[in-house]
This record gives sequence, C-alpha cells and structure tokens, in this order.
Amino acid sequence: MTERREPPQDPEEFAHFTVHSTDQIYDSPWCGLRRDVVVLPDGAHQEYHVIEISNAVAVVPMLPDGRIVMIGQYRYPIGKTHWEVPAGRIADGEDPSVAAERELLEETGHRAGRLVPLPGFYPTNGISAHYAHAYCAYDCERVAELELDAAEQLIVRVFERCEVEALLDAGKIEDAFSAITLMYVLRGASS
Amino acid sequence: MTERREPPQDPEEFAHFTVHSTDQIYDSPWCGLRRDVVVLPDGAHQEYHVIEISNAVAVVPMLPDGRIVMIGQYRYPIGKTHWEVPAGRIADGEDPSVAAERELLEETGHRAGRLVPLPGFYPTNGISAHYAHAYCAYDCERVAELELDAAEQLIVRVFERCEVEALLDAGKIEDAFSAITLMYVLRGASS
Repeated sequence: MTERREPPQDPEEFAHFTVHSTDQIYDSPWCGLRRDVVVLPDGAHQEYHVIEISNAVAVVPMLPDGRIVMIGQYRYPIGKTHWEVPAGRIADGEDPSVAAERELLEETGHRAGRLVPLPGFYPTNGISAHYAHAYCAYDCERVAELELDAAEQLIVRVFERCEVEALLDAGKIEDAFSAITLMYVLRGASS
Repeated sequence: MTERREPPQDPEEFAHFTVHSTDQIYDSPWCGLRRDVVVLPDGAHQEYHVIEISNAVAVVPMLPDGRIVMIGQYRYPIGKTHWEVPAGRIADGEDPSVAAERELLEETGHRAGRLVPLPGFYPTNGISAHYAHAYCAYDCERVAELELDAAEQLIVRVFERCEVEALLDAGKIEDAFSAITLMYVLRGASS
C-alpha cells in the first residue's frame, strides 16, 4: 500500500426515518424478520422489511511465511463448495475478537500469534443491520484438529499469496466475507 | 495488477444436503423466509433457515479521467448515511447489465460508455442464495437528473482514486457491495 492520507468526510447525515409501527413476523435464534412501517421525510408511510441476523466475524489466517489458510466449505443455501476464510456468528455477549479466535480454531485448527482488526462491513445494509467484524490473524500455527458441527463440511488448504490473488481475479472467491477481507489484507490495510 | 496466472482448482464438491421438508414462513416482493429440514450426510435431520432476496447489481461508475462517482446514501436498517456505489435489485426478467445501467442512471444520473463485469459475490452465503452481479462502468457521463424513490435519500459526489483508497483503508466504506467492487476496480480486475 502507498502512503496513507486522511480520508474524505463522511456524507452529511440525512434525516432518519421514524418508526410508525413494527410487526415482528418471525423470530428465532438463527434469524428474525420484521416489517416496520416508517415515516419518510415527506410524511408518507412506507413498509420496510428488516432481516435480523446476529453479527458475525470473518478472519484471514496467515502463516508466519505469509501464506494464507482457507477452507473449502459447502454452503447449503447456494448448493456450492468454494474457498472461503473462516467466519461465523458471534455468540451472545462474546467479544468479536474472541469469536474470531474461536472460529479460526474450530474451522482451521489454527491459533493466531497476533489478531489485527480489518475494516468491518454490513453485508446487506439495505435490508439488515447485520454487521461483520473482520480480522487478519498473523503468525498462525496449527494447534488442534477441526471441531465441526454436523452441518459443516469443510477442508483446510494453505495458499500462496499469488494463488489467492489469482482466485480473486478469476472471480473464484464468491463469498463476500472472504473477498473483502482478503482484498483488505492484500492491500495491507491491517499492517 | 501484476501478471495473471491460472487460479488453483475449486475445492472438491461435498455431498449436498437433501431437503426433507420446507416451510415457507413468509413471502413478499421484498423478501421471503423459509425453514427447510435438511438431511445431513450422516442421515440426521436439521433445520436450516434460508432468507430469500432477489438478486442484485452493484456498479462502480468511473469518469473518463479515472475519478469515481459515489453516492452518500441513508440506509434505514443501520440508521447511517455513508458513501456507497450505486446498487439495487434486479427486476423480474431484467438482464443484470440492464439493471446496472438503470441503477447507475437512477442513482447518479450517469450513463456508461462501457460496462465491464467484475467478479460477483454472495453477500451472506450461510443463510441466503442472494447474489450480486458487479460491474465497472467506464467513461461515465452525466446525462440526467436523479430519479429517486420517496424512500431514497442520497447525494452524488466525485472522488479522486486516492480518496477512495483512503476511505477504504480508514474503514469508511462499510457497505460490503461497495468495498468489494471498489477493491476489484482498484486491483484492475475489470481492465
């Protein structure tokens, strides 16, 4: 990365919608769905659906030699197995960095020497407040076997940095959490 | 970007879950929610929630001089106004590239000289098959005023490339669609 400079200002905050009413359509430990009726700045009412998903972490595991650990994971909703970085939900009351260390260990069997924050992100901010905290895990070492849920099918593989770049540029990193965090690491955003 | 190389193989496809039963909890033009009971490879049954959202496009508008157009947009679910690239849902039967041109025009008033695909992505592949097609719109010119829904509040601003880099590295591009597409463009993935 080249020299850092001060970023431009955020845009001026627009008037927020106010909530006229809320209808909780569904609730569960996995996700919720509500239908708000919001009051727009012009006074009109409008329905707005909001999906509720607890916040998540994504973590890029890097070995002392700079190689990157990824997992080949089956994702039921899309019916595909592809390369991803470890990621998962944050448990109730869990610190995001602890969740990142836990997912790293469970999904790759690695422990980080040093966990450094990357920019976080809202995967779908038009319909959910779901937020992902992101980290680069430097100086990882393998310390354990995988601890997988019955629903998790995955394999672990170590990639050269240039292989990760080739996967990205070929459009093979289709999981947004992975594409973002890997590109931040390649930019040196966590160094 | 440096020289391209062949990417590593995708991981071997794991056995897919089969669907034992499906319960459509909610359906609407905005989103649906279903609760599948899936059969895991070990034969056990497990609930799996899937959120249904129609596919989307995201487009990075670039001017002939290389500057990038972004919008400052209010997002109700997160209660924030921040810098984003134009994005939106694909209408029924609409070609993704047509949707990208439409969103570009509606949200920024610009038309592209040349629309080039970027790698697409699944924003939340653990819970939804929702997919985003991504583009870089080169040689944009302003041809119209904005056409906004009553619920859309946004402003248009032109950024130097180094300003976009500074926003990314400062963690100010919190919208995943924007962070991914901007980083792909900065990597030269569409050139």
